[in-house]
Amino acid sequence: MSLINRQLRLKTRPEGLVRQDNFERHEQPVPELADGQALVRVLYLSMDPTNRVWMSDIPQYMPPVAIGEVMRSLGIGRVVASKSKHYALGDLVQGLVGWQDYALLDENKIGYWVKLPSKPPVALPTLLGACGFSGITAYYGLTDIAPVQAGETLVVSAAAGSVGSIAGQIGKLRGARVVGIAGGPEKCRHLVDDLGFDAAVDYKASDFKQKLAEATPEGVHVNFENVGGPVMRAVLSRMVNGGRVALCGLIANYAGGERASDDYSVIIVKRLTVRGFLAFDCPDQARAVRDLVGWVVSGKVKAGETVVDGLENAPAVLNRLFDGSHTGKLVLRVADDG
Amino acid sequence: MSLINRQLRLKTRPEGLVRQDNFERHEQPVPELADGQALVRVLYLSMDPTNRVWMSDIPQYMPPVAIGEVMRSLGIGRVVASKSKHYALGDLVQGLVGWQDYALLDENKIGYWVKLPSKPPVALPTLLGACGFSGITAYYGLTDIAPVQAGETLVVSAAAGSVGSIAGQIGKLRGARVVGIAGGPEKCRHLVDDLGFDAAVDYKASDFKQKLAEATPEGVHVNFENVGGPVMRAVLSRMVNGGRVALCGLIANYAGGERASDDYSVIIVKRLTVRGFLAFDCPDQARAVRDLVGWVVSGKVKAGETVVDGLENAPAVLNRLFDGSHTGKLVLRVADDG
Repeated sequence: MSLINRQLRLKTRPEGLVRQDNFERHEQPVPELADGQALVRVLYLSMDPTNRVWMSDIPQYMPPVAIGEVMRSLGIGRVVASKSKHYALGDLVQGLVGWQDYALLDENKIGYWVKLPSKPPVALPTLLGACGFSGITAYYGLTDIAPVQAGETLVVSAAAGSVGSIAGQIGKLRGARVVGIAGGPEKCRHLVDDLGFDAAVDYKASDFKQKLAEATPEGVHVNFENVGGPVMRAVLSRMVNGGRVALCGLIANYAGGERASDDYSVIIVKRLTVRGFLAFDCPDQARAVRDLVGWVVSGKVKAGETVVDGLENAPAVLNRLFDGSHTGKLVLRVADDG
Repeated sequence: MSLINRQLRLKTRPEGLVRQDNFERHEQPVPELADGQALVRVLYLSMDPTNRVWMSDIPQYMPPVAIGEVMRSLGIGRVVASKSKHYALGDLVQGLVGWQDYALLDENKIGYWVKLPSKPPVALPTLLGACGFSGITAYYGLTDIAPVQAGETLVVSAAAGSVGSIAGQIGKLRGARVVGIAGGPEKCRHLVDDLGFDAAVDYKASDFKQKLAEATPEGVHVNFENVGGPVMRAVLSRMVNGGRVALCGLIANYAGGERASDDYSVIIVKRLTVRGFLAFDCPDQARAVRDLVGWVVSGKVKAGETVVDGLENAPAVLNRLFDGSHTGKLVLRVADDG
């Protein structure tokens, strides 16, 4: 085979936002396959806050990406060559494909590979969003980590994002009053008009705290938290005694800048239960995906993606997670399927 | 009656440590009793970090003490006069007696009054410590909030203090490996030699973090946290994935000075469950006290108190909570019983 594999390798660790020159573009022929290996044409890359964390040499749940290593990323692709018994030509797979055109799938090495239905019931980007890890994260957070009950008030931050938009809709399915926090009037309108949230509050507005209080007249029972910093502080100040926090992300902290100082004392004063979690730990991902696909196909949950083209744009596209210029799941299209 | 009641009334809110002149000494005759009221001779005052919090005008679980109000404090006293049907002359009571010689017990008003056995099975200061709210706090934290299992590693901060010393001993009764954190070699010796902790680590030592790591070779499953700040950060860095934190207190923050900045990200990375709690919420305080009294009387749990004399010394004595110059429960004796 004489296929050329473009790769983006981490050259230097970014400070704050990601720069194009933090990465080195590398081209090399795809490797010869050994027994047990398959070659995967990368189709879509999942653009996640965790990518930014992986670039930093700080304590985290996986080792950071090493300098010189292909940037780690979840994605979807098709098997285009195989010497594996488990993966056949044409199989659709999800795994840690990396920022490159072709990924090497080795059935004897951990790569978090999952075989997907070859003709999935939803669009491929949705498999990375509402019906993928973003959806699983929302589902796990509101099912196991901080189960929300009918009649309770749920506040979701980064509510127009990939995880938040699904978390809010699951909250509605559970019968909760759902309040979303997002940046700007258009996103807030989207949450209420398109996704069925009960209310949405613009964290960029000068009267944010007052609007949040008005939107949560009975306080907040569950906070599905994606942001941290001042947004989270405002939500915690509205929590009821004994409230629960599903601590999913702290995107306010990931891209550097002034590090928001957190405050544990409110956890005591309000007797909160704060649980951090990762979708990887979800004990029954298959059930979560089954439920999520069912909801999306039946229209009970609306999936949404922002799809951008071009592997070479990955660093700039990733930054859109931090400037709020996307809605729903942010996905990079590397190649067309077919 | 012509008894004179000395009172310490809050005059100004302290910054940092408490000063004598934050309080105004006031003397007045005890009030005439109305129906449903009793007069309580205050015997012992409980000196607690929460007293310092109550002096500050910050969000907290009760309203702060108002300027001009008698300083709020839990304590024990004897009924010396009564027009109440429920409280008789000689009854021993616990309640929010305040920093004064005589407290007015009104059975129609909330005062958190509890009638104690007139001849209690343990010394009166112990009723405020191991067999009072300090013990209840430790018990509740390790029973309901973050139950510790046999074979797990429990780390307790401020372990030589009123709550920590009992929490560590309860951990031992539950079969856990118990590591205490305290200030100075003498307190550390006390924890291991006198109270039966498996190990103790001196947070003032330059090799604190290394010693903590050596004392927790299998990581930390449960953290009973009283301190916050750098001590807590060090413990969280040793937590196992899925570890549990009973967040009892943040004494590092209470007395002002440089406010330690907390960090929520470790909660996600390690999938921690952090639960704040107050002993007031313990659903079965009677059972907790029964167990605690049983353990103390049988010698399974060693109670310890630092008793200091003199109502007028209350502000200075309270500061001893923050300079570490006490061991066990800090109690102020206002008058002798009998």
